[in-house]
Formats: sequence, C-alpha cells, structure tokens
Amino acid sequence: MSVPLQLVPLLEPIREDLRRVDGLLHQTVAEAGEPLSSRLQALLSSGKRLRPALVILIGQVFGAGDSPFQCLAAAVEMLHCATLIHDDVVDDSPVRRGQHTLHTLWPAGATVLAGDFLLARSVALVAELGQPRIVRVLAQSLCTISRGEIRRLLETNDTGNQRQQYQSTIEAKTASLFGAIAEMAGILAGAEDTQITGLHRFGHELGMAFQIVDDVLDLTGDESRLGKPVGGDLRQGLVTLPVIYYLEQFTGNTAVRAVLSGQRDEEHVQAAIEAIRSSAAIEASFSEARAHIRSSQEALGLLPASAARETLSALCDYVVDRRH
Amino acid sequence: MSVPLQLVPLLEPIREDLRRVDGLLHQTVAEAGEPLSSRLQALLSSGKRLRPALVILIGQVFGAGDSPFQCLAAAVEMLHCATLIHDDVVDDSPVRRGQHTLHTLWPAGATVLAGDFLLARSVALVAELGQPRIVRVLAQSLCTISRGEIRRLLETNDTGNQRQQYQSTIEAKTASLFGAIAEMAGILAGAEDTQITGLHRFGHELGMAFQIVDDVLDLTGDESRLGKPVGGDLRQGLVTLPVIYYLEQFTGNTAVRAVLSGQRDEEHVQAAIEAIRSSAAIEASFSEARAHIRSSQEALGLLPASAARETLSALCDYVVDRRH
Repeated sequence: MSVPLQLVPLLEPIREDLRRVDGLLHQTVAEAGEPLSSRLQALLSSGKRLRPALVILIGQVFGAGDSPFQCLAAAVEMLHCATLIHDDVVDDSPVRRGQHTLHTLWPAGATVLAGDFLLARSVALVAELGQPRIVRVLAQSLCTISRGEIRRLLETNDTGNQRQQYQSTIEAKTASLFGAIAEMAGILAGAEDTQITGLHRFGHELGMAFQIVDDVLDLTGDESRLGKPVGGDLRQGLVTLPVIYYLEQFTGNTAVRAVLSGQRDEEHVQAAIEAIRSSAAIEASFSEARAHIRSSQEALGLLPASAARETLSALCDYVVDRRH
Repeated sequence: MSVPLQLVPLLEPIREDLRRVDGLLHQTVAEAGEPLSSRLQALLSSGKRLRPALVILIGQVFGAGDSPFQCLAAAVEMLHCATLIHDDVVDDSPVRRGQHTLHTLWPAGATVLAGDFLLARSVALVAELGQPRIVRVLAQSLCTISRGEIRRLLETNDTGNQRQQYQSTIEAKTASLFGAIAEMAGILAGAEDTQITGLHRFGHELGMAFQIVDDVLDLTGDESRLGKPVGGDLRQGLVTLPVIYYLEQFTGNTAVRAVLSGQRDEEHVQAAIEAIRSSAAIEASFSEARAHIRSSQEALGLLPASAARETLSALCDYVVDRRH
C-alpha cells in the first residue's frame, strides 16, 4: 500500500491488520494467473487503504474477531478497484494512482474483463463470510454505482439542476460504497439495527465529503502527489462542486465557461483552473465537505466509545485535511 | 422469451415457471430506470431460456418448491446476459439475438456499466436465497469466465496447441456457467454431495456440447435464424472446432488459411465458409458434441428418476439437434 504520511500515525494501531489485508489482495492477484496478475498487482498494491481501514476499525469498535474483518476489508478494496478499472474505460483516463491505466496498456475488452474478475473475487470473498445479508448490501451498492454512472454518462450538462445532478452523481459514485462498507462491517460485527443504520449514515456522509475533497484537489493539488494531471475533471467537461460555486459567483463569459462549452486547449484549461483556484469556490466547497464530516462524526456517537471510534473520527478529519 | 419451435413441447411442463422467471427479469429491468430499462428489456426478453429451464427442471427432479428456483433461474439468465453485454464490447459485435448490440447504440462505457448493473442484480438475487455456498459457486463461475476470456484475448493463435486452446476457451466461456448453474440448482434442492458433483458434470458437459454446436451453427446456420451474420467467428479470426478439424484435414493454402491470416474480404470469407461447410469438419464436430451429450446424460443417472429428469435428457438431445 502507499499510505500518505499524514495517515501513517492514524493507521498505526491497525498496521498488522492492513498487512494481512494486503496478503489477501496479493493472494487473489496470484490466483488470477499471468498476464492478469502483474497488472492487478500494480493497481492493488497502491491506494490509501482508507476503505479497508474503515472495516477493520468498525470491527474493533465492537471488539469483534480480526479475521473476517480482514476478509471483508480485502473484498471492499477489490470491489473499489474493479469499479476504478471500469471507470477508467468509461472515462478513457490515461493515468490512475500515478500509473498508466490498464486500458491504455491492454485492449479495452481485456480491461473490462479484468474488472469483472476482481468483482467476482470480491463477491466470492464476501460470500465466505457466510452472511447473505452482507452479500446483498455489497450487490446493492454495485447496482447503485453502475446505475448512477450510466445516468451521468447519458445525461447532458445543460439539463436540470447542476447541483442536484452533482449530488446524485457523487452519492452513487462514492458515498453509496462508503455507506455500504460501514453497514457491512456493522452487520459482521453483530451491531444492533440502529447502530447499523448509523454506520451507513457515517459511511455515506464520509463518502460525500471524500468525493467533494477529491474534486477540489483535482483543481488545487499537484500532479506528482495526485498521481494524475491537475484539472482532469474540467478537461473532461465534468461539472464538480467548485465549478458549480464558481459559476454561481461569476455569471459572465469566463475561461471556465469556455472550457465547459468545449474549448479544451491548454491555454483555456490553465486559465480556468487558475480562476477557480483564486476564487471563493474552493473554500465554499471545503466548507460543504466539512458539514458532511460533522454529520459523519455525529453518527459515530451511536457506537460504543473506544479508541477505534476515536480513530474513525480522526479519519473523518483527515478526509477534509488531506492534500492528495 | 423467444423459444425455438423445437423447444416448445419440451418446455411446456415448466411454462408457468418460465413465465414467472420472465416476471422477475422484467421487474429487475424496471428497477434499472430509464434509459437503461428499455435497452435491457430488449435484450432480456429475447433468448431461449435454456439456462433458466435447467434450474427449474433440476428443482422439479428433487420435488423442491418453485419460488426459490424461479429466483435462481432469473439470476443465472441475468448473469449470462451481463457476460454477453461485456463480450459484445470485447469482440465489438454489432448484432446479438437479431438486434443491434448495446454498445453500437450507447457509448462503450455505458454498456460496460449496464453489464455491471445486471451482474450486481444477479448477485443480489442469489443472495436472497440465503445460501452463501450458492453465491460462492456463482462468483467462482464469473472468475473463470473473465479469466478465460482474458487469456483468449491476449493469446495469439499461433502459439501452443489450437485444440487445447479451444477446449480451455469454451470451458471458461460456456461450460463453467452451465456447470455452475446445475450445481447451484442441486445445492438449492438440498441434493447429496455426490449428486451435486454429478449435476456439475451434467451441466459442464452440456455446456461443452452447446458451445461446439453454437460454433458449428455459426458456419452452417442461416442469418435470419441465428440473429447474427453467418461466419462471424471466422471474420474475427476465431479458430473454432470445425475450423480446427478442417485445418487438420487440409494442410495446403486454402481460403480458410487466407482468412485466418488476415484476408477478411467477403470473397475469401464466403469461400472459406463454403469450404468448411462441404468438408467432413462439420460432422466431426457434431460427433464430438454428441460425445459430450452422452457424458451429460450419463451424469443424470445419479438423479432420482422422474419426468423432469427425462426432460433434462431430452434438452440434451435438443442441444445437438437444434438448428439455431
């Protein structure tokens, strides 16, 4: 894994668990056989391991055994990677996590199938837990993700309310999986139904904040730390939250509008990035992310007080404080 | 559903079950929301319903209740359709089941996600059955399918033993799912372990025969009944069993070799199709399919004698006798 420096002290108490999760991921990759193994290895060995960390920590909040939580943690990381692989085909992205995406190295078809393989392994791993309810939550989350992405692809930017569209998009794309992850970990831990509902809300709100910050960092981050070019969303014509705030504030003919209406040359893109960066749109977006984080931390109040619960709360703060 | 005339009398005793399966498929499609619904409806409402029929009939062999088998039957049809959607992206096929494939109408990305949606719904439906073992078999089958297809895509035709490659390809592509379907139905019916093993073998052998016959019909069928152009595999340079038999018999410079080495103009393709059609390769392939069918029918011997078992045996005969 490639954990950012800021995250290291937070994840220290679960370092051994995350090492075992990495072991499970490695094992799945080995079972794939070459040439799939090497490609998946490169993808699965990167990543912050934020989603697996949530699973492990929720297990610890309830004092539950380690091994099934490591299994669930590996499964959610696989599912996440599978959706990334398919998304990179969908968006034709050249770089992910600082590496060339699978579909720039392989035919698109093989890449689609590589995603299917990871999906299937993820489902198989979750089935090992012996709890059909957890499989249902996982499957439901994948339904939401794929349905949401299809809507985003087939919708035009001009129709409807941009803010509402953005909200639905990030709910489907990110918050639904974060919500499902926390919910599954709660079910596995034998939590009460009100706690499971609270965990879903915790994950959902954390996911909303995570995606908003991701969308801000796409504009304000630096390429070497992001592992992908700055302004990637804008170059694709995606209207993210900082763009929405900017457009609300500046209604005239700006570089941002030029890029969104198709003028995607480097000069316009750089001018648009600079304009948004120096506007109040960035702080307004962060502020919205922080509101989600507060709801997320509030939902944690339903869980038993414990060191692991404190770490979950600290992870929430990390999500808005991070710089990549 | 669009059941071939030959199949109608065979499926008559389970007509009501298949109607309910169609209802479940329709329900899933409706849940997808537009514009996904209309597209999936077109795909899911066609098809022979052979895979669902196997599930229902195996349930009846064991005198088990209808409803869970209808659920499993719908799930396997969805999984099958999901793999077809992804395959059409992989192979860039323009027509499937007499209709334009999804990816010729939608961007490839949306098509990939439509397949993911069906996959997820299939897993969710199987999870409803409350038996994690069944989810594992389903997931394992999807692993095998995707891994096998990746190998096929990244392998060149020149290397290794063509017959062995063909065997592995159709095992992964078709037989693994047929095997899994029969196994899952056996588990759901509460069959004994030896019977479940026998059911897996029944499905696997039936799947091998089914794919061989499919590959023969791709050359000998007529376009209107196949729902796709004749010789589609050959046009893609795929080496199927009749082609292998032909190449073993005719080692010189034939139109078939010309097509395989890249001369895919209509004149060469038609000459190649005609050459294979009038050779002994067709009968040799059918004979190999019949051998698989015999193994498949033999495996049925492990199940309790019943009208449903007789229908399963008759379905085996149909698979080699069918003309589309």
